[in-house]
Amino acid sequence: MKQLSIVKVGGAVVEQPDKLARLITDFASIPGRKILVHGGGRSATRIAASLGIESQMIDGRRVTDEAMLRVVTMVYGGLVNKNIVASLQAAGINAVGLTGADMDIIRSHRRTVTTVDYGYVGDVDRVNADALASLLESGIVPVVAPLSHDGQGSMLNTNADTIASEVARAMARKYETTLTFCFELPGVMRDASDSSSVIPEINPVTYRELRENGVVAGGMIPKLDNAFRALTDGVAAVVITSADSLADPTSGTRIHL
Amino acid sequence: MKQLSIVKVGGAVVEQPDKLARLITDFASIPGRKILVHGGGRSATRIAASLGIESQMIDGRRVTDEAMLRVVTMVYGGLVNKNIVASLQAAGINAVGLTGADMDIIRSHRRTVTTVDYGYVGDVDRVNADALASLLESGIVPVVAPLSHDGQGSMLNTNADTIASEVARAMARKYETTLTFCFELPGVMRDASDSSSVIPEINPVTYRELRENGVVAGGMIPKLDNAFRALTDGVAAVVITSADSLADPTSGTRIHL
Repeated sequence: MKQLSIVKVGGAVVEQPDKLARLITDFASIPGRKILVHGGGRSATRIAASLGIESQMIDGRRVTDEAMLRVVTMVYGGLVNKNIVASLQAAGINAVGLTGADMDIIRSHRRTVTTVDYGYVGDVDRVNADALASLLESGIVPVVAPLSHDGQGSMLNTNADTIASEVARAMARKYETTLTFCFELPGVMRDASDSSSVIPEINPVTYRELRENGVVAGGMIPKLDNAFRALTDGVAAVVITSADSLADPTSGTRIHL
Repeated sequence: MKQLSIVKVGGAVVEQPDKLARLITDFASIPGRKILVHGGGRSATRIAASLGIESQMIDGRRVTDEAMLRVVTMVYGGLVNKNIVASLQAAGINAVGLTGADMDIIRSHRRTVTTVDYGYVGDVDRVNADALASLLESGIVPVVAPLSHDGQGSMLNTNADTIASEVARAMARKYETTLTFCFELPGVMRDASDSSSVIPEINPVTYRELRENGVVAGGMIPKLDNAFRALTDGVAAVVITSADSLADPTSGTRIHL
């Protein structure tokens, strides 16, 4: 089976020219087939505020009303995505920037309203692995923005971690897929204050121990649960590492079955 | 030789939901291989103004400073482009939205400063006809925003008419290419106040007569000069028509050698 690397970076990385330059160099150095998924960062909130649009958050999640959908479509799909693509082209990587609507790569439906209406937020139904594979086999590197579409003419806002996981799960049927989440920290750590305490590997047995000991807690639990779900669906490995260590395959925490 | 239709629409069309819906239906009905090139319209100026960025114009052309480059990248490459793509997908057309940076389709250089510095404006050097042809042959419809890139990491603002002409000239080496410019008027008219006075065909001989009689004058001359230049470079026909008549192949003015 051919290998594929999927890397997810936060939007904040691309807002700082020095961090973006480092990311481009490191991502360019990854050999073989690869896909970059990026977040939106704070630009959308800042630009929305300048346009007089208020960012409403519920439990840390953005509520996407119609005005905010226009902002994330232009900021994630235009500003952030195209600047990454132009930078990758300058580094000799033949990138193409995509949202879920482009080539119909990520189809979603608007999240059902239960107690909270998140607005124009899409829950992923289907990733078009054939379309992505045909780009990869032509030597093209997809750069995917955190936007999907509903197939009825509307873009939808979708979390970048979710996009990365869903793309990895779909591509795992065609490629030996490694999914790397770039993070502010160097990996999953035994002691958050000690950067040398990164846990190099986690498997289902050690994960149970780490949770029982309380070493892994809080926001790291849903991240690792998601990682194991991706592994169950055929992704070969999930790596949690720092954006600064992307080029170092021994860095970070490698999660596998 | 296989046939290819390239259609250029102004940005204003996509800013009005009813006009956009009409465009999508009409463009979807064009049989065979096709490319849509869109302008930016007034959204960029309006959004720039809301962000406190002043639009500076010299002789009707926008000066693109760094702040304005960010605005046009997000508005043309994100908002306008992705809304067209999502609408085409809903109409069953497998569209992909592209700027010049994506797949390196349109490489340009920043316009040389003579008396006027237009800022981040790109003059086209090269259109990657192979990349566009490979999409077309996979049944994909490219939707091209009026943005190019310099190959050194910067996006550049490029006039949509120019993008459409350059793409047509490059594709003419591979396809029997018709280039259609959608316009506010129903075509080149003998009498601007009489919509039934559309001149159905213009060739180099009748063009000379029309200019000598003063029927064609003003802003129509550079448009027609550009059209004849495209024909000299191998484009089969240039059509100037109204956006409302896109689906009617007998409408508008057909310019040919």
